[in-house]
Amino acid sequence: MNDSVQNFEAQNQAADWWRTEIIDMEPNKINFRGYPIEQLIGQISFVDMIWFMLTGAMPSKGEARLIEAALVAGVDHGPQAPSIAIARMAMTCGGSLNNALASAVNVLDDVHGGAGEQAMMLFQDIRWKVEQGLPMSEATREGLDKWRCEKGKIVPGFGHRFHTTDPRAPRLIGLVREAAGKGVVSGNIADIGAEIEKQLGESKSRNIPLNIDGATAVIFSELGLPAPLGRGLFCLSRSVGILAHAWEQQLQGGRNKGPLPKGWLWKYDGVPPRDFKSA
Amino acid sequence: MNDSVQNFEAQNQAADWWRTEIIDMEPNKINFRGYPIEQLIGQISFVDMIWFMLTGAMPSKGEARLIEAALVAGVDHGPQAPSIAIARMAMTCGGSLNNALASAVNVLDDVHGGAGEQAMMLFQDIRWKVEQGLPMSEATREGLDKWRCEKGKIVPGFGHRFHTTDPRAPRLIGLVREAAGKGVVSGNIADIGAEIEKQLGESKSRNIPLNIDGATAVIFSELGLPAPLGRGLFCLSRSVGILAHAWEQQLQGGRNKGPLPKGWLWKYDGVPPRDFKSA
Amino acid sequence: MNDSVQNFEAQNQAADWWRTEIIDMEPNKINFRGYPIEQLIGQISFVDMIWFMLTGAMPSKGEARLIEAALVAGVDHGPQAPSIAIARMAMTCGGSLNNALASAVNVLDDVHGGAGEQAMMLFQDIRWKVEQGLPMSEATREGLDKWRCEKGKIVPGFGHRFHTTDPRAPRLIGLVREAAGKGVVSGNIADIGAEIEKQLGESKSRNIPLNIDGATAVIFSELGLPAPLGRGLFCLSRSVGILAHAWEQQLQGGRNKGPLPKGWLWKYDGVPPRDFKSA
Amino acid sequence: MNDSVQNFEAQNQAADWWRTEIIDMEPNKINFRGYPIEQLIGQISFVDMIWFMLTGAMPSKGEARLIEAALVAGVDHGPQAPSIAIARMAMTCGGSLNNALASAVNVLDDVHGGAGEQAMMLFQDIRWKVEQGLPMSEATREGLDKWRCEKGKIVPGFGHRFHTTDPRAPRLIGLVREAAGKGVVSGNIADIGAEIEKQLGESKSRNIPLNIDGATAVIFSELGLPAPLGRGLFCLSRSVGILAHAWEQQLQGGRNKGPLPKGWLWKYDGVPPRDFKSA
Repeated sequence: MNDSVQNFEAQNQAADWWRTEIIDMEPNKINFRGYPIEQLIGQISFVDMIWFMLTGAMPSKGEARLIEAALVAGVDHGPQAPSIAIARMAMTCGGSLNNALASAVNVLDDVHGGAGEQAMMLFQDIRWKVEQGLPMSEATREGLDKWRCEKGKIVPGFGHRFHTTDPRAPRLIGLVREAAGKGVVSGNIADIGAEIEKQLGESKSRNIPLNIDGATAVIFSELGLPAPLGRGLFCLSRSVGILAHAWEQQLQGGRNKGPLPKGWLWKYDGVPPRDFKSA
Repeated sequence: MNDSVQNFEAQNQAADWWRTEIIDMEPNKINFRGYPIEQLIGQISFVDMIWFMLTGAMPSKGEARLIEAALVAGVDHGPQAPSIAIARMAMTCGGSLNNALASAVNVLDDVHGGAGEQAMMLFQDIRWKVEQGLPMSEATREGLDKWRCEKGKIVPGFGHRFHTTDPRAPRLIGLVREAAGKGVVSGNIADIGAEIEKQLGESKSRNIPLNIDGATAVIFSELGLPAPLGRGLFCLSRSVGILAHAWEQQLQGGRNKGPLPKGWLWKYDGVPPRDFKSA
Repeated sequence: MNDSVQNFEAQNQAADWWRTEIIDMEPNKINFRGYPIEQLIGQISFVDMIWFMLTGAMPSKGEARLIEAALVAGVDHGPQAPSIAIARMAMTCGGSLNNALASAVNVLDDVHGGAGEQAMMLFQDIRWKVEQGLPMSEATREGLDKWRCEKGKIVPGFGHRFHTTDPRAPRLIGLVREAAGKGVVSGNIADIGAEIEKQLGESKSRNIPLNIDGATAVIFSELGLPAPLGRGLFCLSRSVGILAHAWEQQLQGGRNKGPLPKGWLWKYDGVPPRDFKSA
Repeated sequence: MNDSVQNFEAQNQAADWWRTEIIDMEPNKINFRGYPIEQLIGQISFVDMIWFMLTGAMPSKGEARLIEAALVAGVDHGPQAPSIAIARMAMTCGGSLNNALASAVNVLDDVHGGAGEQAMMLFQDIRWKVEQGLPMSEATREGLDKWRCEKGKIVPGFGHRFHTTDPRAPRLIGLVREAAGKGVVSGNIADIGAEIEKQLGESKSRNIPLNIDGATAVIFSELGLPAPLGRGLFCLSRSVGILAHAWEQQLQGGRNKGPLPKGWLWKYDGVPPRDFKSA
């Protein structure tokens, strides 16, 4: 066999180890899923690019409007959110914005931000049951029971520790209904969300309404996004608030900022003072 | 003094410790710099929200167009970029998208992505000299000399290890010139960028053209953004590519993906095998 | 009520929010679980301190010897381990050792390093069955079946993609047997490990021996450590290799180190080049 | 040329890209700087391994004693330290111990933990001047002046925001003096530390004594460690406290733990409520 062909085998193996369908590059050429980057710059929005990079599809104008809304809605929930507090504290320790961002985004996990991904899984499970022929209300009841049985009593996407009515959710659902009216989405997931809300409130003295995680989950599920990418998009959205707060903290100054005002101490409730005797 | 007033002093001290001008919250109310969130959702784009959260100002349509372009341009540079490779490897270790994103964004530091922030500092230094009355070419020469003296011979924002002409830069500068023509920006920083390019090429056999970091730095400096926020915006942009690659790796599968194909080993050039004798 | 008492209520609430049994501090006094730090410095080893901080108990000399061995064994597995490669790449991006350490430790998750924690859970489940009266071999068979049913066919702690006999495992088990002979530990978990090895090998043409994760899991389980802390100790151990490689990379130099040699490209197998037409 | 030789060229290039002097591996063989791992396990302590991995040298018994002390001393400073608070908050967000560890270690930067590295640089600069023939007190004065001029008025390693006398520092210096008496170290850096303390106190009403960062910096500099590895060792040490607090938080429970007690809000001092009118 030709010598130079032999030599390429190993390099091809390495190239294949890092294969991707996302980006193709040669000197002076960068194509994203086939499109030269210079044809996209100035022609599509950042949201178009986000959706295209993640899913391979360009969103229609109506779809993009919903994505923009979901991303705008999730950017921040104030310094009592661990991701925001962590970013602010990190900026006083000497690192850069990318480090504060990293420490903060890292905690957007199952409990803090992962609720959107989990709500999508719940919605998609109920949608599947409906597609199998179950009536909406039965599919919802089954889906809720299964979820509680497997994952615990907290139903992701509903209720809120702070707001009785999360001001972001009704507005997002309103946009979904608008879009459904124009045929941009089906509205089926919004219906599932409403049915869950109804059933959750049945046995309680107060409503357990859709919250921000549930509302964005409705949008992303209507658009056919895989559930883990719902978490990815929440990370992008929340990164904005994280950066804003980190930057503000940088301007405010401070060194080694702890969670409580300087001089405040924590409560120690462990073993009382004792002398150490080595064995 | 009134007892309840006394009790509030400590809580106020804690509230002040976490003071912010970004977000105000009460149950059922979330305002961003004064605007109720439900008035922003569906009314502004994600890019509008990004700029507003970081700077406090809503961008005009013309400004937003430039920001969109800069964010679209920086999303990815392929699996040979450390941030992208790290994200792909991280996804095979059992964590979630937010963890892969964190490990990857964390390395968008001075050498990998921080070039945009440094280019902004260079441009802003030269712009200040021009504002003090120096002719453009003299201000540029001084600025370059000062930079090389303090920071080393690599001028941020120019040249590229891979592309002789970065396909993204001319397109971005074209949009800046368009915007300058419409009075959206002054075009002064674009002029500085062109002058630097000219002077860098004087003593070389080949051009050292503006690259992606320099071009986005031109845009952000034209829009008056503080240099560190240039790095912040690059992080937001690159997060998109990071998420796309992490997700693709998740779909491809793999466990504990290393940098080289399975079975390939590294070169060991240390001490030869020896027996250990404890002292 | 006394004014000053009222004022302390809020500060006490905040103190309680951050309560801990680990450390008590006043100006000039730092006690760890009751012991003044200056009585520990120079009196106990780092491994003593690690165990004491995590569990509240000082290890005996025999126990400490096993912990030292487990921590020594896990420090590194070379640049094809994602954590090590990530640390090396991170150091070429402009950040500091702590940033490289963070990006790398972050991926010591379920698949990369979490196997030790999972092996501990498996061992502890089988031990419980034995304590309930089941014969060792039946308890092991049940435990293995249950694990495979719930978690999949990969049994954590056994076999290795690279070594047919991991050189670290027999040495560690040898130390456990020695310690059991001296009454430092019971040896029961080592027995369970041996029984699993035997049963895994029954239906295969080759052995599936205990690996490093399984061996350290034996040690930590013999010492009564909760399973998640097994992962914590692996993180401490692996941090050593991560730092060593990050530092070596810093000395070697390099900028924006990717996974493949400079100039090597990845394979693109996505959509062929196409022009973008905006909708 | 022989075909198989040609094919190995590319694989060798890749192997060289990941070259290291730290670890050599083949199936069933792992050598660290020449020593088979199974000869080290049970023969050396974790601290021996740490020093050996980082520097290539096995510490003597006297040197190891100092390293153990330095590592024991730095493990924790309570929940008001940002690294500790971040770890505790991270554990309530749904991730694992390695994720909490990563987010926390990431902030052990210049201001929070990097002081040890910077103190080492200061000490080493003054030591160099002494080796050039300057009297100790003149070398120290010059070194301090130069530091303040280049880096600002805060001298790393001295004084403390919380303790007037850090209980850890005198104990560590005592161990250094003991070791110097036995010829394990020279004691020269301890002398420099004492001279700095003397000069810093000259113009103040109160002492500015050596703190924990300065004391560990004395130890590491006496042992000839490069300054950045001082930060690395602090990271290893502080990782212990980080893990202990993360684990304790896990046991305490909590979801999305913020910096202040549940229900407490931050102070908003930004733009008052206003309606948004799109342009």
